[in-house]
Amino acid sequence: MFTKRHGPPGSSPATLLPHLVDGQSRKPSIQIIEYDEHTLTEHDISDAHELAAHLESGKILWINIDGLGDAEALTLLGKRFNLHPLALEDVLNTGQRPKIEHTPDYVFIVAQMVYQNQSLTICGEQVSLFFGKNFLITIQEEGDYDVFEPVRARLRSGRGLIRKSKADYLAYALLDSIIDHYYPVLENIGTAIEELEDELLEKPSREMVVTLHEYKRNLSQLRRFVWPLRDVVNGLLHDPSGFIHSSTKIYLRDCYDHTVQLMDLVESYKEISAGLMELYHSSVGLRTNEVMRVLTVITSIFIPLTFIVGVYGMNFAPQTSDGKPLPLNMPELYQPHGYLWLMVIMFLIGVVQLLIFKKMKWL
Amino acid sequence: MFTKRHGPPGSSPATLLPHLVDGQSRKPSIQIIEYDEHTLTEHDISDAHELAAHLESGKILWINIDGLGDAEALTLLGKRFNLHPLALEDVLNTGQRPKIEHTPDYVFIVAQMVYQNQSLTICGEQVSLFFGKNFLITIQEEGDYDVFEPVRARLRSGRGLIRKSKADYLAYALLDSIIDHYYPVLENIGTAIEELEDELLEKPSREMVVTLHEYKRNLSQLRRFVWPLRDVVNGLLHDPSGFIHSSTKIYLRDCYDHTVQLMDLVESYKEISAGLMELYHSSVGLRTNEVMRVLTVITSIFIPLTFIVGVYGMNFAPQTSDGKPLPLNMPELYQPHGYLWLMVIMFLIGVVQLLIFKKMKWL
Amino acid sequence: MFTKRHGPPGSSPATLLPHLVDGQSRKPSIQIIEYDEHTLTEHDISDAHELAAHLESGKILWINIDGLGDAEALTLLGKRFNLHPLALEDVLNTGQRPKIEHTPDYVFIVAQMVYQNQSLTICGEQVSLFFGKNFLITIQEEGDYDVFEPVRARLRSGRGLIRKSKADYLAYALLDSIIDHYYPVLENIGTAIEELEDELLEKPSREMVVTLHEYKRNLSQLRRFVWPLRDVVNGLLHDPSGFIHSSTKIYLRDCYDHTVQLMDLVESYKEISAGLMELYHSSVGLRTNEVMRVLTVITSIFIPLTFIVGVYGMNFAPQTSDGKPLPLNMPELYQPHGYLWLMVIMFLIGVVQLLIFKKMKWL
Amino acid sequence: MFTKRHGPPGSSPATLLPHLVDGQSRKPSIQIIEYDEHTLTEHDISDAHELAAHLESGKILWINIDGLGDAEALTLLGKRFNLHPLALEDVLNTGQRPKIEHTPDYVFIVAQMVYQNQSLTICGEQVSLFFGKNFLITIQEEGDYDVFEPVRARLRSGRGLIRKSKADYLAYALLDSIIDHYYPVLENIGTAIEELEDELLEKPSREMVVTLHEYKRNLSQLRRFVWPLRDVVNGLLHDPSGFIHSSTKIYLRDCYDHTVQLMDLVESYKEISAGLMELYHSSVGLRTNEVMRVLTVITSIFIPLTFIVGVYGMNFAPQTSDGKPLPLNMPELYQPHGYLWLMVIMFLIGVVQLLIFKKMKWL
Amino acid sequence: MFTKRHGPPGSSPATLLPHLVDGQSRKPSIQIIEYDEHTLTEHDISDAHELAAHLESGKILWINIDGLGDAEALTLLGKRFNLHPLALEDVLNTGQRPKIEHTPDYVFIVAQMVYQNQSLTICGEQVSLFFGKNFLITIQEEGDYDVFEPVRARLRSGRGLIRKSKADYLAYALLDSIIDHYYPVLENIGTAIEELEDELLEKPSREMVVTLHEYKRNLSQLRRFVWPLRDVVNGLLHDPSGFIHSSTKIYLRDCYDHTVQLMDLVESYKEISAGLMELYHSSVGLRTNEVMRVLTVITSIFIPLTFIVGVYGMNFAPQTSDGKPLPLNMPELYQPHGYLWLMVIMFLIGVVQLLIFKKMKWL
Repeated sequence: MFTKRHGPPGSSPATLLPHLVDGQSRKPSIQIIEYDEHTLTEHDISDAHELAAHLESGKILWINIDGLGDAEALTLLGKRFNLHPLALEDVLNTGQRPKIEHTPDYVFIVAQMVYQNQSLTICGEQVSLFFGKNFLITIQEEGDYDVFEPVRARLRSGRGLIRKSKADYLAYALLDSIIDHYYPVLENIGTAIEELEDELLEKPSREMVVTLHEYKRNLSQLRRFVWPLRDVVNGLLHDPSGFIHSSTKIYLRDCYDHTVQLMDLVESYKEISAGLMELYHSSVGLRTNEVMRVLTVITSIFIPLTFIVGVYGMNFAPQTSDGKPLPLNMPELYQPHGYLWLMVIMFLIGVVQLLIFKKMKWL
Repeated sequence: MFTKRHGPPGSSPATLLPHLVDGQSRKPSIQIIEYDEHTLTEHDISDAHELAAHLESGKILWINIDGLGDAEALTLLGKRFNLHPLALEDVLNTGQRPKIEHTPDYVFIVAQMVYQNQSLTICGEQVSLFFGKNFLITIQEEGDYDVFEPVRARLRSGRGLIRKSKADYLAYALLDSIIDHYYPVLENIGTAIEELEDELLEKPSREMVVTLHEYKRNLSQLRRFVWPLRDVVNGLLHDPSGFIHSSTKIYLRDCYDHTVQLMDLVESYKEISAGLMELYHSSVGLRTNEVMRVLTVITSIFIPLTFIVGVYGMNFAPQTSDGKPLPLNMPELYQPHGYLWLMVIMFLIGVVQLLIFKKMKWL
Repeated sequence: MFTKRHGPPGSSPATLLPHLVDGQSRKPSIQIIEYDEHTLTEHDISDAHELAAHLESGKILWINIDGLGDAEALTLLGKRFNLHPLALEDVLNTGQRPKIEHTPDYVFIVAQMVYQNQSLTICGEQVSLFFGKNFLITIQEEGDYDVFEPVRARLRSGRGLIRKSKADYLAYALLDSIIDHYYPVLENIGTAIEELEDELLEKPSREMVVTLHEYKRNLSQLRRFVWPLRDVVNGLLHDPSGFIHSSTKIYLRDCYDHTVQLMDLVESYKEISAGLMELYHSSVGLRTNEVMRVLTVITSIFIPLTFIVGVYGMNFAPQTSDGKPLPLNMPELYQPHGYLWLMVIMFLIGVVQLLIFKKMKWL
Repeated sequence: MFTKRHGPPGSSPATLLPHLVDGQSRKPSIQIIEYDEHTLTEHDISDAHELAAHLESGKILWINIDGLGDAEALTLLGKRFNLHPLALEDVLNTGQRPKIEHTPDYVFIVAQMVYQNQSLTICGEQVSLFFGKNFLITIQEEGDYDVFEPVRARLRSGRGLIRKSKADYLAYALLDSIIDHYYPVLENIGTAIEELEDELLEKPSREMVVTLHEYKRNLSQLRRFVWPLRDVVNGLLHDPSGFIHSSTKIYLRDCYDHTVQLMDLVESYKEISAGLMELYHSSVGLRTNEVMRVLTVITSIFIPLTFIVGVYGMNFAPQTSDGKPLPLNMPELYQPHGYLWLMVIMFLIGVVQLLIFKKMKWL
Repeated sequence: MFTKRHGPPGSSPATLLPHLVDGQSRKPSIQIIEYDEHTLTEHDISDAHELAAHLESGKILWINIDGLGDAEALTLLGKRFNLHPLALEDVLNTGQRPKIEHTPDYVFIVAQMVYQNQSLTICGEQVSLFFGKNFLITIQEEGDYDVFEPVRARLRSGRGLIRKSKADYLAYALLDSIIDHYYPVLENIGTAIEELEDELLEKPSREMVVTLHEYKRNLSQLRRFVWPLRDVVNGLLHDPSGFIHSSTKIYLRDCYDHTVQLMDLVESYKEISAGLMELYHSSVGLRTNEVMRVLTVITSIFIPLTFIVGVYGMNFAPQTSDGKPLPLNMPELYQPHGYLWLMVIMFLIGVVQLLIFKKMKWL
């Protein structure tokens, strides 16, 4: 679901390895939004050096870099906004645990956003946020969907508090959007698990267990990103750097509640899927038991009977080849009604066995 | 058991989405009770605007809204009592984790009430409480049963402390009633689990496991609502806003004890049902073992015997077609008492096998 | 093991529902012991109003009520010693989690005492203690055995510190006696579990699992009463009300150590019984495996042989009804030594199979 | 492994029940070592009253009592060194959880020492230590081996710090020796578990599970004594009584590290044995599966074939007794090459089945 | 993976047992690097006494001892740098839990480094670090690979901060290199586990479970070294001795994040492998169930049919030897079309059984 990346062990810290090198990342797109309460302008630039023209507008500046291939742009931003090289390295080392760092110049947040693409695969992308008094820089892995779009729409529409507030509120809004996007993903997993439950009670199959196993792994992975997310929001709530206004904190507390609810959801889905696995085990165990019972009942009834008819299929001769009678060699075969008597006896044996199995509650 | 609802991800915070929109909620009913130690009046109003007439009575005011369909009434109350839009949004986002929020103007509590309807299904409804010095607003999901009814009866009767105290005692009484209503639900689950135990020891079936699984899920869900309820009561006990009188705190401590006991109950029922699941597994395993033993004993005894009688059912000819004798082709068949000897030998084989199985403790 | 009781949900707090109402409790007996270092008098009274005569003696007063049926006596004591109605309600709501409450007038303790009656059933009774400077009131459920008896004997004999100390030491002595009585019960369970282990290794049966399951439930229940007991003793050790003398605290610390050891015992027995359950599972699994191996070996050897003898039991005719010879129809049957050869071949097949099974370590 | 002992419930606290009473303890031996940097004298006395002569030497005094049968000696020491009766009671109540108690006069430690005797059984003995400024009293259960012996040797040799330091260093040295003796025991268990692992992968048997279960119980028991041991050492490190010199504390920190490592060892062996149990389960499950596969393949191939040969073993007559031909009664038997055709067909059926089982990966 | 070593129990603390004694360690190699911002010199010495010449250079001194066989060198360094004998003992007692100790003269760190050698076996070596203001001593077990090599390369190249900083930065760089080397090892395990998952879904075999078990043990062992590593880094971050400059602390925080991520990785791989084990169990259970179903269906169909053909293979005589007809002895055999009717009936029995099994979802 998430791509993990880091430099070779023992290498110098704070090295920016441009992610272009693996030939997979295209040149990232850079989007700049400058706004205050009254105006909003948007620019899409392709070369990091065009950034310079927009940095001194006095408005709130949101720089969004979509893709990790442009180490130069990062270096440039790093110099301009005094970003620590270790933080920039974290931006590129994807698949990280969400975290928050406070510095005198900015707050740095790493989070993982989650969404489902058209084919319903769960995708994860690392998002890094730097924000100070008047600026916010977001750098995300390149992907199919951008969870920031609803926030951009709110910015453009100018409704609500978002245009009237500072960069901290924008950071909150983005973080809230990231967190909110976990809900539909989790709920889809939840629905899928519940459908699985119904199927599983019908007829357990190996495919279901594999699917269930897959969901459990997804949930584990989501949990590993949701738990530290709570700490991130908590870190913002108790921000020592003074970048967060108290009016924003009320919203952050709401955001905090959401992370707690997310954890609740993840845990409860995990518990349900563990319960399902157990149900599956017991279901298979009981089925095996039933199958064995049928086998045992049928075998126990017919094997002795088959033995009996085998006895009377033996060819013990009534007389030797030279005609001497062998009177005790299978005299039953020469009894009047011998056949009938045998059939009745075998029928009775079968009935008695059935009654015994009935009494043992095997039927 | 509980209905979960929330807005689309990334939407503006504090949006009141009237729950009328899904066409299922009817116009909610609003009930107003004004009381002091000596008088009590009740009004049922249908339009939120009629509220205004009752807000300035100087008595303690309890506004109960039954149903979430009337966003207008919420907005109106929100303005009049200075309720934060985020809190009002929480009122509508049902299926939430219980929580408490302290503001200078009021205390806000979200809880989940639980009851069993006529068909014994466990139902859950979200209840939101706002209370300040002289007012208490409760907003609940619409349902079959109202856990507040016993408190209303106590209010009307005027006995006890309830009419003599302020809104904080009323809030306590309502919360206590919510908590108390968990007991019968839990005890019914407990009784059902114990009945299941007896049945399960009799004859395990798949239905029982499914039922047990269902109870375990119910217990998990109840636990998720009981644990934070304790924090809510604790939050009231250490209320920083000064709305809770110390005389009420003694009662809240009792209430706190009840939440702890509820958690104890939930945990112990969970443990019992986990134990039952284990008992079930071992029971099925042992049954399979017994079935296999019967199968093996019967098969092991009769298969060799069947082989033997098969041998003497072979048609090896005592002489070739042209009359040349084949003296060693099954001479047993022509022995005097051959049949009797064979029967005795087979009987002995069977007895020896039985003794072996007896010694192996398979019988 | 324990009886749970509480009022209907939503009812007014601090209601004393006399437990006479269910017609099962007899009129409780009330016993009064007044003592100082030099004298000790005992009275058994049947009517709560006789209490008044004994309350002003200046000595240390121990009032023991055996049975919960007399709400009047409780009300009377409540008034005289200023006991809070919520505490009195707790006295009657049996099956509660042990707890401690400190008030300026008295310390209130709820505990559960445990003993085994003549038929070795584990019984639990709720005990409530109120004690202040010069008085101690104990109210217990009515039962077969009174764990206070050894303390009463020590009081009467006048040896040790008990007569020289205040009510706090008496409270300690009673609590210590309650805690001490958990030991024999736990040890009996421990011994029973160990006996079960030996039997289980001999021949696992369903009865054992059910017994083991029962012990596990007993242990869970005991644990739920032992854990909070530790908090009760700890609460006494850090008593803020000043009723506990520092000389008593040394003894309470000893008492605290005992609760910790009890928890240790409970946990270790729980662990042992969980290990036994696992041993049982693996034992059954291995037995099934062995049974299957026997079945498979016998079946695999005899089924092919039975097939072969079946072949030579077929009636393919050596010639058509009109005497035309059918030379290839089972010529083996007409071979000299055909029967012997077949027997040898079948013997060899059997031996080879046995060797294969030997090599697969199935034998 | 450990013997548990305590008085009857409800008995007076601080009662010294001489352990002679059960007739098993011999008269304990008392050993006195007096030493300072330059001199060391040893005395073995048999009567507690001889103690008095050695108590006023001014040197550091180590009194070691080996066996719990001499209550008189304890009482005497208790009076002389002001030992609290509750502590003396703890000395006799064996099988206790390790603990530490600080008093103004001495520090009291209870620990459990562990060793393997000649027959490699793990033995445990309770050791109690009292030490003050110039004295150290150790009282141990009587047993096969004395973990203090290496320390005694160091004392006698006079090398190292031990003779130059006070009683606190001696206490440290003894505690360190107790802790160090856990290592070989644990390592033996670890080696045994690893050997078990190899055997188990070869051929699982019931004996192994029982052995594994035994090791798990041993580990659980060791864990219960190692965990509190850490707290004991920690209690010494943060000793409020001033008996521990700061130079000794460096050594105690080393000792603390050892307890942490012991816990690490115990936990990791527990984890390994749990993993082994799981491996065993899966191994048995897979074996059963393999056995079943063999059974099913052989049965599935031969049972239909046996049926077929059974068909041609039927005795449907080609003509009635009065010679009327019954042309459709088993005409196959009278076909030329009928037998050969049948053999070919049966061979093909067998081959096809084998191919099917091959494709299902059962072979 | 790791070799554990410690002295005999009860021996004098701080004993340096030269590890030469077991004859396996070769004479260790000692490497000295002296550097400042501008110069760097390297010396390889074979005799510890040559050390003295290099100790007073005024530059930063890194002494690296590769192998534990030279107790003399340790004693020499111990005297020169005032290293505590207990710390030196820890250097030699390998297989220890990572830890940190602060002294006024130096900081002492024990860590475990991990790498995979050519044959991909996971190897662990204990590394001990002592560092003060201007010196750093590292002592490592002798092995195939040295995780310090990349740091040495950085030192030689002179790029980055490493030559401009003090010994604390060097210590950080080495620790970071140790931690970084856990990543490839963990990722290799992760990849192997995932490959196992695919295979396991194909065809479960015993080898896989054993491999999985091995990985789980590796992960457990790695976890036991990663968890305390976090505490070590944390101990450096909150270093009370003042050896760590605040500029280095930023890098240490990065290092701390890495340990947290390592733990995350270990935990998630553990969870995945536990999930795989469960998947394996359920897979085997389901397979057994399928095998049983096939067996039961085939047996249930053919065993009754075999019985029936057995019946008509019986030799009940149509007439006695003296020619008296026995009319009811198997008259079916003499019916016209009797054989055909029987075949039809048996075919129908088979079809009905197939339909029944189809309906029971066994096919």
